[in-house]
Amino acid sequence: MDTKPPYAIAIHGGAGTILKENMTEEKESAYLAALDTALSIGETVLKNGGSALDAVEKTISYMEDCPLFNSGRGAVFTHDGKNELDASIMDGSNQMAGAVGGVSTVRHPIVLARAVMEKSPHVLLSGRGAEQFAEENGLEIVDPSWFYTEDRWNSLQKVLEKENQNGKTGDASPVINSDHKFGTVGCVALDSQGNLAAGTSTGGMTNKRWNRFGDSPVIGAGTYASNDACAVSCTGHGEYFIRYSVAHDLWARVNYLGESLETAADYIINQKLKEKGGEGGLIAVDKNGNIAMPFNSAGMYRAYSKPGEREINIYKE
Amino acid sequence: MDTKPPYAIAIHGGAGTILKENMTEEKESAYLAALDTALSIGETVLKNGGSALDAVEKTISYMEDCPLFNSGRGAVFTHDGKNELDASIMDGSNQMAGAVGGVSTVRHPIVLARAVMEKSPHVLLSGRGAEQFAEENGLEIVDPSWFYTEDRWNSLQKVLEKENQNGKTGDASPVINSDHKFGTVGCVALDSQGNLAAGTSTGGMTNKRWNRFGDSPVIGAGTYASNDACAVSCTGHGEYFIRYSVAHDLWARVNYLGESLETAADYIINQKLKEKGGEGGLIAVDKNGNIAMPFNSAGMYRAYSKPGEREINIYKE
Repeated sequence: MDTKPPYAIAIHGGAGTILKENMTEEKESAYLAALDTALSIGETVLKNGGSALDAVEKTISYMEDCPLFNSGRGAVFTHDGKNELDASIMDGSNQMAGAVGGVSTVRHPIVLARAVMEKSPHVLLSGRGAEQFAEENGLEIVDPSWFYTEDRWNSLQKVLEKENQNGKTGDASPVINSDHKFGTVGCVALDSQGNLAAGTSTGGMTNKRWNRFGDSPVIGAGTYASNDACAVSCTGHGEYFIRYSVAHDLWARVNYLGESLETAADYIINQKLKEKGGEGGLIAVDKNGNIAMPFNSAGMYRAYSKPGEREINIYKE
Repeated sequence: MDTKPPYAIAIHGGAGTILKENMTEEKESAYLAALDTALSIGETVLKNGGSALDAVEKTISYMEDCPLFNSGRGAVFTHDGKNELDASIMDGSNQMAGAVGGVSTVRHPIVLARAVMEKSPHVLLSGRGAEQFAEENGLEIVDPSWFYTEDRWNSLQKVLEKENQNGKTGDASPVINSDHKFGTVGCVALDSQGNLAAGTSTGGMTNKRWNRFGDSPVIGAGTYASNDACAVSCTGHGEYFIRYSVAHDLWARVNYLGESLETAADYIINQKLKEKGGEGGLIAVDKNGNIAMPFNSAGMYRAYSKPGEREINIYKE
């Protein structure tokens, strides 16, 4: 029988074709350090008796500012050369939730998602309206150029070049995610009061069009939390995570089938989704402080911590 | 043991405080006739061996054109006096899905949702981008004034007046859905091939702000379909349906708990949601052609049909 720890926290920084042979030592160190700092921020909140919700919001806020991750500053570019950000957060204690899709002027989409949850009668706001809500509520507004990084801009140029080449041979279909890297950040936490929370934030997919939203702003797909079972944050090919309501499905398998968090999470990611071609992973913590972080891609930036245990990893073990 | 019928179809036209004493005979007749026509459209597709997906799309397209329902023409107005339409569709045979949120120029949002599913690599498109996708794919574009109806415009004016009154007494909170009418249209169907499909379309809530999306464009919340269990379309206070992933939850209870469609649907609407204050209802059909249409509000515009059975109703029986 497990003893429930006073806190537990897990984070991810995206999944995909992340291979050691393609990584410089310098870059690897930078990622490990950023994951370490992010995790520490959440741990500090929780060790001081803070709420899971605060831990999730503060941890993700840091990751949004870190240009290594595809969220906030460092987000990927759309086909039109913009950064359109999505985020969501859910409070497992009352199943309140907030989400935003397609914002380009709000420094911390995760803070905006929480404001939507706490200060509006709505769950999901989008585009310019979501930005107006941020302004009305005094959130930090930035020039869209704040989100620009040279790396992500170059990634878009490469994809556009490929599309252009394809176009010459008559293939007009958009090139989406040709590098199989699904950048997203997420955090799940259990606090000393027994409350669970989950949050997710992303820039989506390089070269996305038509104001596309992935699973990150979709409660039940990219994010879910309920004190009766678990808190979940996903990363991967968002369309699959929406079609299979992955975050809610994990909750349902734990709650209805009585599966352990690890069994249920492993089944969804490594069987159900894998068979369908849905690449990605998730992080989850259950009400007893158990943590699962399965992924079916080559790697996933990830870390977790509870009293006496602390790990930071990138590749498959 | 039930025998599986060659087809089954159910539709809804929204739930809420729909009381016989507030209805004129003329209006009641108009609603009953519109539901009858809508149902007939789907029945004809299915009786002729057409697909559940076609039945859902064609039935909802008719309802979108009918000014009685809050979807397409006849949609409610936002705080800024616009019509912003949401819709989604899901094919139970392969769990492909398409959805759009916040479009103002596309005559049939449900047709656009299907185009997103079939002609884009994405599931959920929003706002201006979704409209551009519609244009690129040759869908019918209309002037935003196409969606205007005097009735809905007057409803907005009443709500704005109330907000203005509240403002004078210091209450600045938005007045959302003060009349407890949740207009939405939806259709679920089982075809002779054993395929299930579900679709939902709406104008959202009168006086909504900040480009709010409800549950209708959220796969897993307002719409879900999978041949292994059931197809679902919801109507009601969308924020609750998102927070509890209602459509996917019904699928999960049938699939994981082995509950009958009726037991599961009744539990979710009349216990789980009711206890939380989540007003509304849903329609669902399972793989064996069983139909459930529970609602916890005073009324729900609804109808269903399968060989030998056909009913159209508005109020609680």
